Amino acid sequence: MAAQNRILVLNGPNLNMLGEREPEIYGRTTLSEIEAECRKAAARLGQELDFRQSNVEGELVAWIQGARSSAAGIVINAAAFTHTSVAILDALKLVTGPVIELHISNPFNREPFRRRSYVTPVAAGLICGFGAHGYVLALEGMAQMLKERTGR
Amino acid sequence: MAAQNRILVLNGPNLNMLGEREPEIYGRTTLSEIEAECRKAAARLGQELDFRQSNVEGELVAWIQGARSSAAGIVINAAAFTHTSVAILDALKLVTGPVIELHISNPFNREPFRRRSYVTPVAAGLICGFGAHGYVLALEGMAQMLKERTGR
Amino acid sequence: MAAQNRILVLNGPNLNMLGEREPEIYGRTTLSEIEAECRKAAARLGQELDFRQSNVEGELVAWIQGARSSAAGIVINAAAFTHTSVAILDALKLVTGPVIELHISNPFNREPFRRRSYVTPVAAGLICGFGAHGYVLALEGMAQMLKERTGR
Amino acid sequence: MAAQNRILVLNGPNLNMLGEREPEIYGRTTLSEIEAECRKAAARLGQELDFRQSNVEGELVAWIQGARSSAAGIVINAAAFTHTSVAILDALKLVTGPVIELHISNPFNREPFRRRSYVTPVAAGLICGFGAHGYVLALEGMAQMLKERTGR
Amino acid sequence: MAAQNRILVLNGPNLNMLGEREPEIYGRTTLSEIEAECRKAAARLGQELDFRQSNVEGELVAWIQGARSSAAGIVINAAAFTHTSVAILDALKLVTGPVIELHISNPFNREPFRRRSYVTPVAAGLICGFGAHGYVLALEGMAQMLKERTGR
Amino acid sequence: MAAQNRILVLNGPNLNMLGEREPEIYGRTTLSEIEAECRKAAARLGQELDFRQSNVEGELVAWIQGARSSAAGIVINAAAFTHTSVAILDALKLVTGPVIELHISNPFNREPFRRRSYVTPVAAGLICGFGAHGYVLALEGMAQMLKERTGR
Amino acid sequence: MAAQNRILVLNGPNLNMLGEREPEIYGRTTLSEIEAECRKAAARLGQELDFRQSNVEGELVAWIQGARSSAAGIVINAAAFTHTSVAILDALKLVTGPVIELHISNPFNREPFRRRSYVTPVAAGLICGFGAHGYVLALEGMAQMLKERTGR
Amino acid sequence: MAAQNRILVLNGPNLNMLGEREPEIYGRTTLSEIEAECRKAAARLGQELDFRQSNVEGELVAWIQGARSSAAGIVINAAAFTHTSVAILDALKLVTGPVIELHISNPFNREPFRRRSYVTPVAAGLICGFGAHGYVLALEGMAQMLKERTGR
Amino acid sequence: MAAQNRILVLNGPNLNMLGEREPEIYGRTTLSEIEAECRKAAARLGQELDFRQSNVEGELVAWIQGARSSAAGIVINAAAFTHTSVAILDALKLVTGPVIELHISNPFNREPFRRRSYVTPVAAGLICGFGAHGYVLALEGMAQMLKERTGR
Amino acid sequence: MAAQNRILVLNGPNLNMLGEREPEIYGRTTLSEIEAECRKAAARLGQELDFRQSNVEGELVAWIQGARSSAAGIVINAAAFTHTSVAILDALKLVTGPVIELHISNPFNREPFRRRSYVTPVAAGLICGFGAHGYVLALEGMAQMLKERTGR
Amino acid sequence: MAAQNRILVLNGPNLNMLGEREPEIYGRTTLSEIEAECRKAAARLGQELDFRQSNVEGELVAWIQGARSSAAGIVINAAAFTHTSVAILDALKLVTGPVIELHISNPFNREPFRRRSYVTPVAAGLICGFGAHGYVLALEGMAQMLKERTGR
Amino acid sequence: MAAQNRILVLNGPNLNMLGEREPEIYGRTTLSEIEAECRKAAARLGQELDFRQSNVEGELVAWIQGARSSAAGIVINAAAFTHTSVAILDALKLVTGPVIELHISNPFNREPFRRRSYVTPVAAGLICGFGAHGYVLALEGMAQMLKERTGR
Repeated sequence: MAAQNRILVLNGPNLNMLGEREPEIYGRTTLSEIEAECRKAAARLGQELDFRQSNVEGELVAWIQGARSSAAGIVINAAAFTHTSVAILDALKLVTGPVIELHISNPFNREPFRRRSYVTPVAAGLICGFGAHGYVLALEGMAQMLKERTGR
Repeated sequence: MAAQNRILVLNGPNLNMLGEREPEIYGRTTLSEIEAECRKAAARLGQELDFRQSNVEGELVAWIQGARSSAAGIVINAAAFTHTSVAILDALKLVTGPVIELHISNPFNREPFRRRSYVTPVAAGLICGFGAHGYVLALEGMAQMLKERTGR
Repeated sequence: MAAQNRILVLNGPNLNMLGEREPEIYGRTTLSEIEAECRKAAARLGQELDFRQSNVEGELVAWIQGARSSAAGIVINAAAFTHTSVAILDALKLVTGPVIELHISNPFNREPFRRRSYVTPVAAGLICGFGAHGYVLALEGMAQMLKERTGR
Repeated sequence: MAAQNRILVLNGPNLNMLGEREPEIYGRTTLSEIEAECRKAAARLGQELDFRQSNVEGELVAWIQGARSSAAGIVINAAAFTHTSVAILDALKLVTGPVIELHISNPFNREPFRRRSYVTPVAAGLICGFGAHGYVLALEGMAQMLKERTGR
Repeated sequence: MAAQNRILVLNGPNLNMLGEREPEIYGRTTLSEIEAECRKAAARLGQELDFRQSNVEGELVAWIQGARSSAAGIVINAAAFTHTSVAILDALKLVTGPVIELHISNPFNREPFRRRSYVTPVAAGLICGFGAHGYVLALEGMAQMLKERTGR
Repeated sequence: MAAQNRILVLNGPNLNMLGEREPEIYGRTTLSEIEAECRKAAARLGQELDFRQSNVEGELVAWIQGARSSAAGIVINAAAFTHTSVAILDALKLVTGPVIELHISNPFNREPFRRRSYVTPVAAGLICGFGAHGYVLALEGMAQMLKERTGR
Repeated sequence: MAAQNRILVLNGPNLNMLGEREPEIYGRTTLSEIEAECRKAAARLGQELDFRQSNVEGELVAWIQGARSSAAGIVINAAAFTHTSVAILDALKLVTGPVIELHISNPFNREPFRRRSYVTPVAAGLICGFGAHGYVLALEGMAQMLKERTGR
Repeated sequence: MAAQNRILVLNGPNLNMLGEREPEIYGRTTLSEIEAECRKAAARLGQELDFRQSNVEGELVAWIQGARSSAAGIVINAAAFTHTSVAILDALKLVTGPVIELHISNPFNREPFRRRSYVTPVAAGLICGFGAHGYVLALEGMAQMLKERTGR
Repeated sequence: MAAQNRILVLNGPNLNMLGEREPEIYGRTTLSEIEAECRKAAARLGQELDFRQSNVEGELVAWIQGARSSAAGIVINAAAFTHTSVAILDALKLVTGPVIELHISNPFNREPFRRRSYVTPVAAGLICGFGAHGYVLALEGMAQMLKERTGR
Repeated sequence: MAAQNRILVLNGPNLNMLGEREPEIYGRTTLSEIEAECRKAAARLGQELDFRQSNVEGELVAWIQGARSSAAGIVINAAAFTHTSVAILDALKLVTGPVIELHISNPFNREPFRRRSYVTPVAAGLICGFGAHGYVLALEGMAQMLKERTGR
Repeated sequence: MAAQNRILVLNGPNLNMLGEREPEIYGRTTLSEIEAECRKAAARLGQELDFRQSNVEGELVAWIQGARSSAAGIVINAAAFTHTSVAILDALKLVTGPVIELHISNPFNREPFRRRSYVTPVAAGLICGFGAHGYVLALEGMAQMLKERTGR
Repeated sequence: MAAQNRILVLNGPNLNMLGEREPEIYGRTTLSEIEAECRKAAARLGQELDFRQSNVEGELVAWIQGARSSAAGIVINAAAFTHTSVAILDALKLVTGPVIELHISNPFNREPFRRRSYVTPVAAGLICGFGAHGYVLALEGMAQMLKERTGR
């Protein structure tokens, strides 16, 4: 992965609806507020941020493929595709920088079909259940991972 | 859901091929003939109809998201996505109006992988096996559901 | 099935208790009110109605056997027997007219043992989750099915 | 079991419909013709025959209980109850004479739920797939079994 | 449940055969001796006793339905129906007084199909393995449960 | 199958040891005594008998292949191969005459791996648990089957 | 087991926290209040009581081993160890006096991993769901069991 | 399928990345080199080639639908969609020409979720593990299949 | 939980061996170095730290029970007990402050028996795969969680 | 494997019956015609052919063992042994040349027990469903594999 | 078993290839070297040795049958047949002397299908993972077992 | 592992009870007699013996950890912990000397939950079913293993 400081943050289907509805359940934070939080954390950590969302599996696959030459690491909240997309798994296998799997709540405590994650087998790190703040923790964890890799 | 009388009827992958082929199996009715039947029934029931088909999961997800402000209820024949799309399930969870799951034949009597429906957990009603006429029954069931909701 | 317009509507165990209790859950409609609704719909559709309930599996089996010569179709809400009675399945296999499986709520979203239906394999149509109104939809669906059969 | 030569032949649900319908599948032989065949075979074998059919599980349970003092052995074609009735199993466990399980076709080659037999664990012998002639083979097998028991 | 002190004790299929046979296995106590023990205990506990047995599932269902207005609680030894009857489960769900599940031996240590109990999900208490004495323990447990309910 | 009256009786591995050992369990009858019984029954039924045993799966396969032109039907006690040999299943599929599956005791009540029979899917009839006498019943059943086939 | 009247009542992990918290769920009764109830019942029944609790599996194993020479029977509420401890099962197998399995609520209706009990296979009796009063029922059941054993 | 000599070769997600990376694992051949090999083989076999790749399931579905009138057969390497796409299965079911399933390596020897192929049930032929050369074998196999179909 | 700033960090079996061996696999960091890192992070976050390790399940249970009155939250790396200890799950259920589940690597990608975590159902947050740095992320996540709880 | 151009083509049980029967299902081609086709293709490809068939698992094992020194590669249609023979798997593991698994039809679409192949784990390539022509494709694929191996 | 000191050591398929190949994995010891080691150990232990190998299941079955009169005990390394041969299991059941199951490595840590052993249920002892030395341990264990049997 | 000749023999829960009870089942040998046998064998083999037993999982874990510097190999009869302790598995993974798994009888032939061993994956050798003599065989096997390791 070329761009040493560039982090791709990917958001899967329905995350564009975050915060607009049922704030007592999903929190009041919208995806653009999360993006703003991420930009602040990235600035603090010296990271360049590429923050995206899509409802289309094939588009996420293409973005991951593109990250091979343009990003140092990927933070991915694949949402529903976590549990169904082998195509995303195969795309992530092509990536050499670290991948961090992120979930706002903990999907492994929900319906049985959410217990399978196709992202986990290629994820260096996994963060669940910290709400919007999980994105900041993921960027911090990514910064540390990249520092250790470079340090070697 | 804002539009009190507007019903979104969604059709999943390959339903655009209905009636063109193997009429002895799938019936001779094409999707546009079904749409015409639906328009007649909707007119009779005082419903405004929004009838759509897509082969792309992400497009169906976006239409469901859009229905939050534009439709009173959703009738969905998710076809193959019934059995594979957690993204559609998550989008339907965002909807407050009633959702009716519809199948032309009964998929639960076919291959084992068709026994799982990701639509069922959010569906208020389920109609299978009535062929094209199932769409009319679904609109009637929807009308009754909306009347009862309003009546409270 | 001899009697061209006669529809047998069968109700399984505990449905005699409908509406008497916990109306906020099961609705206020009693089985005799449902029967009245069915009679109105049947009259409108030109159907002769035979509406019965039993808590005894063998009695339901006998009624289904009897329907071979006396009814054009069967609408069956087998309640608990849906999930346990191979005898009812075998009896329904003897029947040539259409069988419609009916449930007031959707049992497939409840305990795992309710996900198996012994009625589904022989049911031409399936209607769940429309409450008492589901009986009316079933009679309408039956009318259409019989018309199509006759039409050929 | 008291009556040394008396054999109870029990028939489960829907067997009263045998031969009346779809003779190309189930054969043309009715249950009363089978009974006649059994009577001839029993006469030849010196057996006294008690031949019964019921669609009600509890009735079959009671007949089996009664056989403890009135029959030397039981031949049972439990039909659908083969696969669902623990009550019949428990009743058969009370019996000391030999029990022979009988099926007209071979249910173990049909739907998966027919692969479980609650009769098998208490059956000394099992005969499937010989059609109506299976009853005669069962009576012959029973005669031999009783002779061997007495012989000791 | 109206009758504050009336306890319905239900016994399922084949329990009418208790004690008549194989006393070294099942004990020598007959069902009527158990009933006598229960009557003594009930008298001591100030309970009115309604003690019944049936081999017919539908009859047990009807008795449970009837208990809604006539009994304060139900002690049920459903025997074989424990493992097969969803209809009894559904009937017990209609009941508001406490339900105590009772078994003479411990069926959960026997064949795998006896490990599933359809009574357990609605049972406030469960007593197994105490033989005939288990009925007395169940009535004592019921007395305590009713006292605590009333006490609140 | 050419030879109208010739019945091939096949015995699988370890059946050559029958009766030599543990007579209290397996009976005192040796395989050659069974063969003698079969010859008597065959003579009575007008059948020509070809009675064989092998411990080698490939040899049984070859005998079954050969039966296509030399036998009217096959009675097979495949013993251990019942549960493991797809090759025997495939050979039996090539045969057009009736196949009867035979077991001395009932293997379906023993270890779980004995519950699968690769012979059952191609067997017209199944006889278990009658000991050595089962061979005679099988020949009688075969005679009746061949008579019915010829009768058409 | 030597001491004819001594009953060992064992309590597993976290039962030391009973009653201190969430009384609306677990009841207000603390473990020492339960012990007091048990002492009263034991006095009434002529039993000597040895009442213990531990969070350490190995300590419970040692107490059970010790009971071989010091107790006439064991009442055990193994709490979480019910579902995980083969060591406790093996220790209980060494014991000859009766073992009664006890649970305050019914664990078999909770998470699937609580459906397995390693205590059940060695338990003569099982009591669940009677809250603190279950301990008293267990001691009464134990008294009866010991009386019957002695009586022989 | 109209165009007698036209073969549609479809490639699923991430196959556009072939050969660009990790050549020691996936080989050095890129997808365009494979396409060139296919064009040579097709020329030799007198086939017209339509060679496509997409990361979007719905696009592949549409191409398959289109093949009904424009191609004589389909060779499909569905990559990750092999294991997840019921929509592609349903589209392939609409096709009458032969379908050949192709994989560069053998996915059935990899993770368990790759053992399920939704393409296999509609594939006339299956070729795995021959790397880029597998495309040539598939076209040859297709040529032979079409010749045999035409020959009849 | 009383002590508003006190965080209990619990380490399960074998974590006392961290860093002493196979540093290329598990990293060179020892548990006391991790504790030192945690103390620095806790100081920065204004947290009081209680850092412990045990190989004994019952000791961990007792520490968790004790945390009810002495800690604001728990970070737990239960190591092997993650997959086997219902007792730790039950103890954690007694706790009201947030629980964060922590793993140095990702156990869910290892042997199948490591896919079950008894900690996850009570964990507000989950962090895996960040090595020693995961402890720092967990403390930061805990700080944010406590701030949000207090903020309400 | 010594002999650089020698290919061993192995055929498992019942393949000696190919083409003799039910030509509408299995094709009219006999195994010796297939051998002739293979000889032609081998001549064209410069391969020396060793073509064998056996119904005996141990004989196939011995032939595979022998191929270590006498053949450059193995094409194996193990027929029924595909699904049952660990011995053939173990023998194939001893071989260093490429192994190609071959099936005339696609066994993975048939009975569930045919979905397991013990050959697949050691097969470099897999070809199914091309009928007799599959042998030719396999020899071509083998030629290419050997050329690539030699090329390195 | 007649011959008091004679031990039959049986080796299953592919064990004739031991040591000839991949000595870094399977060791350099050939089967004849193992036989030599066994002869030395047998001499020391006063045993007469009968050491055999076969790739044919039926041959092993026959040897085991023969051992009934000619050997005091059997040491069997059934190799691949361990996991597939019910026929060997049934033959071993006929044997009264001790059977020791032997494996050079530990097959229970390999592919899942190697976890099932049909030899284990009849094996008095089991030795795995000691390489060629395991044969010597088995003979020593056998000597001790025979001594204890004789001692009684 | 430092001490070249020191062997740690570990015994899990309830093994302290060996021989005290039910000698007809478990043998008359007590654990201290076994220890004495081991000491004799160790002396003969030039091994220093460290023989221990505990009922506490955490204590066994600590002993295994300690063996890293003090023992050349471990023989472990983990008894009940064999089937439940991931902590012991993880501790054994830290050890570099050979580990031999030992069982007095063969647990893999008992209850299904005893079929899983957490020790097997890290065990170089496995010995079951030889009673007390198995300890001696294990020490001999260990001596050979250590000699071979040193020899390289």
